[in-house]
Amino acid sequence: MALVHYPVVNKNGKTIASAVTNLDLHDISRVGKSYGIRGFYVITPLADQQELVRRIVSHWISGAGVEYNPKRSEALTLIALRESVDKAVEDIRQKERHPPKIVATCARKHGRSIGYNTFRQMLRSGGVYLLVFGTAWGLTTDFLQSADYVLLPVQGNKGYNHLSVRSAAAIILDRLLGE
Amino acid sequence: MALVHYPVVNKNGKTIASAVTNLDLHDISRVGKSYGIRGFYVITPLADQQELVRRIVSHWISGAGVEYNPKRSEALTLIALRESVDKAVEDIRQKERHPPKIVATCARKHGRSIGYNTFRQMLRSGGVYLLVFGTAWGLTTDFLQSADYVLLPVQGNKGYNHLSVRSAAAIILDRLLGE
Repeated sequence: MALVHYPVVNKNGKTIASAVTNLDLHDISRVGKSYGIRGFYVITPLADQQELVRRIVSHWISGAGVEYNPKRSEALTLIALRESVDKAVEDIRQKERHPPKIVATCARKHGRSIGYNTFRQMLRSGGVYLLVFGTAWGLTTDFLQSADYVLLPVQGNKGYNHLSVRSAAAIILDRLLGE
Repeated sequence: MALVHYPVVNKNGKTIASAVTNLDLHDISRVGKSYGIRGFYVITPLADQQELVRRIVSHWISGAGVEYNPKRSEALTLIALRESVDKAVEDIRQKERHPPKIVATCARKHGRSIGYNTFRQMLRSGGVYLLVFGTAWGLTTDFLQSADYVLLPVQGNKGYNHLSVRSAAAIILDRLLGE
């Protein structure tokens, strides 16, 4: 998985680098750990935001947080900080000896969107995938167009479709990997 | 739905009143709105925490937040602040002319736990239910024992089972009400 802070759009559709949210790291790494993902890349090119990620993770992995809550520490060890999605892809290529297919998530439907059952089957058939979530108002159109696949949006049942990235990541992992 | 800050337990199993977390209100009301729940009760007996809830909700419902993000405002109108679960039950009894059955959630399995498909069917058959989530380390044993039903824990697929209440609420509503 990757949580992207650049390139994403703001509410006016402009490409920005968003700020890191502490609870995104906690919630998404705990969900990732529960569903057995291999790694959780946090992507930001901003030096101060990279420093913030390092501080949060080190507090829970080697600081006072370990004793306070070892289960949380266990989840946060999934986090790998990278300055771009390309760097995360390169990292996976080296580890897996195979480049990952990029599967982007988006709150809107795309021409090339694939459904949950389809992607669930693809995961079960093996292969290496990087599931990418955007912060702020979501991944840029350019990023979505360059992805190998775009996953269908999570729809509730009411036409209201404005979930936080934390909630969307939880629901999506449960749909893809839940028993 | 109800999000309970008292009675819940801390990491040592002692009954406490927990602090309100801003993002709990946002994330869970947005999930609730997406899946068409009727109301989202935030339960705390502490005056300062009640004041915090009022400030957050009024900022987004009648303050600067409405213009900044009307979709978020729409979700937060689901929130009703009550000092106890009993008061929420009384409120529902008056509105629905019928007391709700209490369905508690818990990260551990109970003797009386019911599964997601069972509860999904119950919801489709009609009836009035209050789905209760605990903050901190979860609802007290006394509360769980007095509930009409306890829902099975969300299990990922790896034996690690330490989700935030925000993630658990998202997954549970998707399982119960997702299409």
